[in-house]
Amino acid sequence: MAKYVGQSVNRNDGWEKATGYGLFSHDVTYPNMLHAKILRSPYAHAKVVSIDTSAAEALPGVVAVCTFENTTNKLFNTSATMVTTNAPEEPVRDQKVFTGEPLYIGDEIAGVAAETKKIAEEAIKLIKVEYEVLPAVYDEMDAIKMDAPKVQPVLEGKDPEYNNICGHRLDFGIGDIQKGFEMADEIVECEIKLPRQKQVQMETHAAVAWYKPNGTLEVQSTTQTPHPTKMILAYAFDLPESKVHVANPPHVGGGFGVRIGLSGKAECLATALSMKALRPVKLVYTREEDFIASDTRHGGTIRCKLGATKDGHFVALDTWAALNTGAYCTFGVELLGVCGTCGTAITYDVRNMHYLGLPVYTHQQTAGAFQGFGTPQGTTAVETCVDMMAKKLGIDPIELRKMNTSKEDRKPFEEMFLPFTLGSVGLNECLDRAAAEIGWAEKRGKKQTGNIRRGVGISCGSHVSNAAPFCVDYNSIVVRFEQDGTFTVQSGIPEIGPGTTTAGLQVACDLAGVPFETSTFLYGDTHKGPFDIGSHATRSLYTVSQVAEKAIADLKADLFGWLTGSEAMQRFAGMDEHHLKEFTSSDLVNMVKFVGKDPATLTMEDGIIRCGDLSTTLKEVCYFAHVCNHQFIAAKSNIPTNSIPFFAQAAEVEVDMELGLVKVIKVAAAHDVGKTVHPRLCEGQIEGGVLRGVGYVAREEMTYEEGKGFYNEGIHKYMIPTADDYPEIVPIMVETNDYKGTYGIKGIGEVGLCGVAAAVLSAVEDATGVRFTEFPLVPDKVIPGLKAAGLIK
Amino acid sequence: MAKYVGQSVNRNDGWEKATGYGLFSHDVTYPNMLHAKILRSPYAHAKVVSIDTSAAEALPGVVAVCTFENTTNKLFNTSATMVTTNAPEEPVRDQKVFTGEPLYIGDEIAGVAAETKKIAEEAIKLIKVEYEVLPAVYDEMDAIKMDAPKVQPVLEGKDPEYNNICGHRLDFGIGDIQKGFEMADEIVECEIKLPRQKQVQMETHAAVAWYKPNGTLEVQSTTQTPHPTKMILAYAFDLPESKVHVANPPHVGGGFGVRIGLSGKAECLATALSMKALRPVKLVYTREEDFIASDTRHGGTIRCKLGATKDGHFVALDTWAALNTGAYCTFGVELLGVCGTCGTAITYDVRNMHYLGLPVYTHQQTAGAFQGFGTPQGTTAVETCVDMMAKKLGIDPIELRKMNTSKEDRKPFEEMFLPFTLGSVGLNECLDRAAAEIGWAEKRGKKQTGNIRRGVGISCGSHVSNAAPFCVDYNSIVVRFEQDGTFTVQSGIPEIGPGTTTAGLQVACDLAGVPFETSTFLYGDTHKGPFDIGSHATRSLYTVSQVAEKAIADLKADLFGWLTGSEAMQRFAGMDEHHLKEFTSSDLVNMVKFVGKDPATLTMEDGIIRCGDLSTTLKEVCYFAHVCNHQFIAAKSNIPTNSIPFFAQAAEVEVDMELGLVKVIKVAAAHDVGKTVHPRLCEGQIEGGVLRGVGYVAREEMTYEEGKGFYNEGIHKYMIPTADDYPEIVPIMVETNDYKGTYGIKGIGEVGLCGVAAAVLSAVEDATGVRFTEFPLVPDKVIPGLKAAGLIK
Repeated sequence: MAKYVGQSVNRNDGWEKATGYGLFSHDVTYPNMLHAKILRSPYAHAKVVSIDTSAAEALPGVVAVCTFENTTNKLFNTSATMVTTNAPEEPVRDQKVFTGEPLYIGDEIAGVAAETKKIAEEAIKLIKVEYEVLPAVYDEMDAIKMDAPKVQPVLEGKDPEYNNICGHRLDFGIGDIQKGFEMADEIVECEIKLPRQKQVQMETHAAVAWYKPNGTLEVQSTTQTPHPTKMILAYAFDLPESKVHVANPPHVGGGFGVRIGLSGKAECLATALSMKALRPVKLVYTREEDFIASDTRHGGTIRCKLGATKDGHFVALDTWAALNTGAYCTFGVELLGVCGTCGTAITYDVRNMHYLGLPVYTHQQTAGAFQGFGTPQGTTAVETCVDMMAKKLGIDPIELRKMNTSKEDRKPFEEMFLPFTLGSVGLNECLDRAAAEIGWAEKRGKKQTGNIRRGVGISCGSHVSNAAPFCVDYNSIVVRFEQDGTFTVQSGIPEIGPGTTTAGLQVACDLAGVPFETSTFLYGDTHKGPFDIGSHATRSLYTVSQVAEKAIADLKADLFGWLTGSEAMQRFAGMDEHHLKEFTSSDLVNMVKFVGKDPATLTMEDGIIRCGDLSTTLKEVCYFAHVCNHQFIAAKSNIPTNSIPFFAQAAEVEVDMELGLVKVIKVAAAHDVGKTVHPRLCEGQIEGGVLRGVGYVAREEMTYEEGKGFYNEGIHKYMIPTADDYPEIVPIMVETNDYKGTYGIKGIGEVGLCGVAAAVLSAVEDATGVRFTEFPLVPDKVIPGLKAAGLIK
Repeated sequence: MAKYVGQSVNRNDGWEKATGYGLFSHDVTYPNMLHAKILRSPYAHAKVVSIDTSAAEALPGVVAVCTFENTTNKLFNTSATMVTTNAPEEPVRDQKVFTGEPLYIGDEIAGVAAETKKIAEEAIKLIKVEYEVLPAVYDEMDAIKMDAPKVQPVLEGKDPEYNNICGHRLDFGIGDIQKGFEMADEIVECEIKLPRQKQVQMETHAAVAWYKPNGTLEVQSTTQTPHPTKMILAYAFDLPESKVHVANPPHVGGGFGVRIGLSGKAECLATALSMKALRPVKLVYTREEDFIASDTRHGGTIRCKLGATKDGHFVALDTWAALNTGAYCTFGVELLGVCGTCGTAITYDVRNMHYLGLPVYTHQQTAGAFQGFGTPQGTTAVETCVDMMAKKLGIDPIELRKMNTSKEDRKPFEEMFLPFTLGSVGLNECLDRAAAEIGWAEKRGKKQTGNIRRGVGISCGSHVSNAAPFCVDYNSIVVRFEQDGTFTVQSGIPEIGPGTTTAGLQVACDLAGVPFETSTFLYGDTHKGPFDIGSHATRSLYTVSQVAEKAIADLKADLFGWLTGSEAMQRFAGMDEHHLKEFTSSDLVNMVKFVGKDPATLTMEDGIIRCGDLSTTLKEVCYFAHVCNHQFIAAKSNIPTNSIPFFAQAAEVEVDMELGLVKVIKVAAAHDVGKTVHPRLCEGQIEGGVLRGVGYVAREEMTYEEGKGFYNEGIHKYMIPTADDYPEIVPIMVETNDYKGTYGIKGIGEVGLCGVAAAVLSAVEDATGVRFTEFPLVPDKVIPGLKAAGLIK
């Protein structure tokens, strides 16, 4: 029944994106629309002593000026709607629309809406603010000290041991970690210093908000979670959710996690100004604002300790992570959880594990969600230890991994880590295929001496296919057959680039048994589709497929039930063929033959309905149902299962010993995708992830300059991988057909990024003998490392 | 349970409309949008011998030129999707996007899309067309002659007696008409010449169409039936319906029937041009185009013959109608059916009736739907006869009517006219109350002599509350509770002015038991709401309420079922109170007490859920369901019942005998509305209808000038009622609580207009003694009438 699943059909949004005709938030315009600019704090920690907006307000063309003094002071959390699981634990609500006590350089103090962008910019300069500068702390290792300046003194978790803990520490494990290490013959340890990475999505954050005095709020924005954004706005501004409409226009220039909840804070800021102006307000972040005032990947410090028996069996794994969440919580707590679960606990079957995760407030900009969401951090630490252990035990790193990887039959899988069965596990096949593709056997462990040295490395790991049941994760869907038998899927998922809505339609069409070409997937709009928690957590295609499966079952039951047993059809079943043929608009002569059949015996493929030898078409049935006053429609809400997408990524690198340059030559990325829905999109998703993984380990870093903020206020000062950095990437899709996923699928969204850093660090060690524990591997870090190892002077 | 039904709440769209911030189709703009102009035929009947568009195409700024030669030639009918009932009868598909054989002055020959409106206008002038002028026929009485020129020679119905019949004659009756007249002691007859009336809706027809090569078509337009418009466009251009999106922006500047199916042909024409240009194309009709190239009310000739016994019982009613449908069919056939059913057959219980209706093609612009849809025409003829009979029998016209009106217990009500039970009948109460309000007893029958003479008249009649089961009539709806317990209704109905979407939300909120203030009604968009046949046939509020009732029952079952028996709630029901109180975000302590209760015993009012002494709030339950990964949502498709809205309208007029001026002083409009949902809107709907009824009978007429077309190419040449013509209008709502309607409601949309002409003609006779059978009663018609009666020289 899978005609489209497995095919690389054309993207639904391809033409619009390729030609430039597609509308993005930057393109949105309304009559009477105002333009907004934001005044941001120049201090990492300060108190506004006085603020005078009179000159700004007096400037001709200025329509509204908002500050922390005249805007709601309600505290909110951009992740609250998504992370509040049914546990006695509330999300940390620590953020305001505007603040009088800025906590990072870039924090929002005031905003202006004016007739033109130029006037708004001018007005911002006219706002006079007197600050009292307060002590600040920037590094997570400084911030956790008990005498460090407090970032969120009222709201921080009361940790007995560490200061500035956002929410609470994450402390969990299985078995007995101490006994585990006692059982170990060998123990290895590492400490990794993790960089901050910026998403640098193509389109900067943008929102057009239009509040009307009838209580409705219309928002078009770059969000990757329209429904949660709606909930956040309703919460922050005390509006009924039913009166808040959030939509993508429909295109979004990339997401990568930075737009989960809010797009920076663009939606909130534009809304506040529109509520004051009662006109549409457009706020487009400059690239600088996007860099300095929206979430990044969490940097921080992670320590890992691994114990194994002599024959290579892992018996104890202890991880300690302090990640720098910056000034506000957002996903700080949950990300530490994923770091401990996906990053360290699932991949290997270690029966004594412990994890302590610390989300640490600092006076830096907020870190939040970014493709991988804690998994790259944890994976890098654990995989470093595994490599160290392999070296220590003299076992091939791949063999050591394959001995210890979790297996499909692993059970009971302790609830602490994974409250559902593991499902299919393609880890070892991924390891073998990545190794073969990279040429592991020939290349690994070749001692080299020249200036240019090559090495290969590998890593493996796991992630999730959605956030359930750790966080809130569900969706609803409406499916309907149009009156000509064509098929419409109404989903609340957005399309932020990966082609989810194309692949989702492939799945839905196969489930329904209708042609893809005449079907449509509506998305990215809280009015067009019912609740969907959004595009994040590698969940989009996986969870949309599941809710679609349930709704389509209902839809087909309605269709087959109507055809075989409706009053209308029964009436016609009694007519003779001659009479029926007068109804020229439909295939009634054949349709009536279905009357009285058991609906369960009907099937549909390609829009042809069959029962034994009988056949008719969906087109005719839908049109005739219309004529008889009936439409086939179904709505469903669903909690998804979860499947674990496993991976192994092998990298080959070239190190220029003299210049300290690391160039990634090739990455073989083998992924247990369960089942490939759209090979080209799946490969693209892997390639994109791998490339950003290359950036993560070899190029990109947000560099904080004390008192000045981040050095990288634009792409010219932030080294995202360019064409020159692009390695040969070989995506390998391993199909394990997980029984939990519709058509056996697992997620792929974030996974391509997760193992690259570990594989490259391993490959660089293979090339140079030096194990780096800090990255990106730019000359500033590589040369000192090579020097310390005595490899260069 | 009816907290909002019966209240005049503020309109949902009031603020936007009052301030001018609301968006209408005229306001819609897209990047890269082109502007269109149409080349229209200067001849009523011609053949294009040659057409040369090369100069137009060469004009800089012209992007696309469409003609009948390069555009689809597929024949369609703008009403096809709505009138095809499940009977062996196909709609007449007689219209093309562009034509090479124009059939009326204004018919579309070619179109241009250009960078600016000015360039498009210029280009239109550069198109060279050579016509062969052909013989034409304009009047329906000429057209039905067997030797008249043919309008649609291929497509016309093959009537043995009459020429130029569009579709087929409507010939139906009950009893035995001949025997009926034989039983009669008195027989009266009349022939009425009916004018064409134009809707003159505030916003001219407009559409912005955007076809993209990925096969999708986006249309924003002034349609009053978004879903049928979608179907028509899909049909005409061979597109899958699922790929066609039609929406109002969301406001529409009035409808009155002229936008059922297509807005003029604006959607089609803009689509054709966009398909050629591959860019968005905006077509806004000028007021002139709107006047000469969009549907009008049917004018024509109607004859009526009524027989009664001496004591006043009607025993035979025969009606013959030939209505001028113009060049194309649209709703020609169905309108003649309504004219015969609602206009002549339902109001009085006459057991021998016959009706012959002839939809007649002529070379005039097309007549189609207009508030009343055949009922004003039929009512005017029958009520004229009833007045004549009252005079002849010497019985008070009101008494005569009350003796003969249909009664609630009338049954069996013959299938030919009304295949459903009559339901409540407020006719006699309407007659009494309208008579009392107009001062019938004191004023009727007072002989007058001066120059200014006053008189009173009355009429009564009936219409329908939707088109079922005569035509296709059904709708679907999606209802959902948001995560904060606020309520959203997703409907495909548009809002064309009457406030349907406000009143519909009142009904839905009462059905759901939730506050109106925090609820939202989505409308006017084929993506935001599932199929709804649209705003016409007095159906909107009536049918939306019925489908909402069914869907909300499902929604509440989901809610109550989840609260009392879901797995999630059962899990919490086992916890002790102390533990439950930790879940600070919700009212769990009270919620768990519902677990195990029979869902059928739960109620909800004002968002408070109760069961005996227990209570909790919808807000808490929805949020907690969200946290437990569930949303309450339901979708439903429904075939409405039908209720008959009856009315009696009494008018007082003043006739200036010298100037031949008829001024309507007062109209008392008593309407059996079943149950009033929103008094202010209901009154407004009646007032608007009455005023256009005044225009119909006393002011408005499209005047055809042979060879030139209609004289009235704008408001300056077409006398719609102004403030000066506004009589005192007293709307009287008679509540009969029809068991078929949700909360007992009936429709009101069109009814205010239906009886005014008959009542005014009656009042003018009361004032002057002259019974006019042709209107509007402008001096040109009044003075000759008064002269013929010897009242003036």
